[in-house]
Amino acid sequence: MASIFTKIINREIPGHIVAEDDHYIAFLDIMPLVKGHVLVVPKQEVDYIFDLEDDVLSGLNIFAKKVAKAIDKTIKCTRVGVAVIGLEVPHVHVHLVPLNTMDDINFTRPKLKLENEEMAEIAKKIKGVVEL
Amino acid sequence: MASIFTKIINREIPGHIVAEDDHYIAFLDIMPLVKGHVLVVPKQEVDYIFDLEDDVLSGLNIFAKKVAKAIDKTIKCTRVGVAVIGLEVPHVHVHLVPLNTMDDINFTRPKLKLENEEMAEIAKKIKGVVEL
Repeated sequence: MASIFTKIINREIPGHIVAEDDHYIAFLDIMPLVKGHVLVVPKQEVDYIFDLEDDVLSGLNIFAKKVAKAIDKTIKCTRVGVAVIGLEVPHVHVHLVPLNTMDDINFTRPKLKLENEEMAEIAKKIKGVVEL
Repeated sequence: MASIFTKIINREIPGHIVAEDDHYIAFLDIMPLVKGHVLVVPKQEVDYIFDLEDDVLSGLNIFAKKVAKAIDKTIKCTRVGVAVIGLEVPHVHVHLVPLNTMDDINFTRPKLKLENEEMAEIAKKIKGVVEL
């Protein structure tokens, strides 16, 4: 069965997409730790990041770097942190999290609930400055 | 001034090294979240991961993948998680954390204090199965 991320890639369910090319996509995490929390996903549906082929892993990180630079320009933060956990959705996803404190990237804390309109606004700002 | 990681690279201070090549090094985190928590570091002293050149970023991740595979073989875990935070030491370091639960990669919780002997034993096991 297609993962929830593949469904976003295929436009079967909506997502606040901020960047996309032939191989990778980035969209807002629907349950963000902080505003501007983005997921970067390879279109190839692989469960575990360290099962990706070297070229896909490299491409994923270079794509993530471009998205992170756009987050840095858009969201007030010290820097963009990275996390790959993968205990839930079985499709590789790199969390890009705008950080001000260590607790901003603590996945055990309660997630934000943002209105769809605010999510759309954040996505639009990031998308507007992504340079792929 | 050289970062604490550069001092480990230069053997000015000790580290429980598990893998090394011309450009990257991996050693146990001295304040681990869980047993087998490793840091992967580029020898080039750059503060922010997204300031690394694409080829260095790619090489870092491919090196990390090889180390993660060795951790997977050595430490009982569901998978190896990844985090790059960088609010403390200003020298890029990728945390590789053997995960069983989400809380295993919560950096706000108290760190483990392991005896030097146990750290050496863990490092030896991981090092013994790394394939660079």
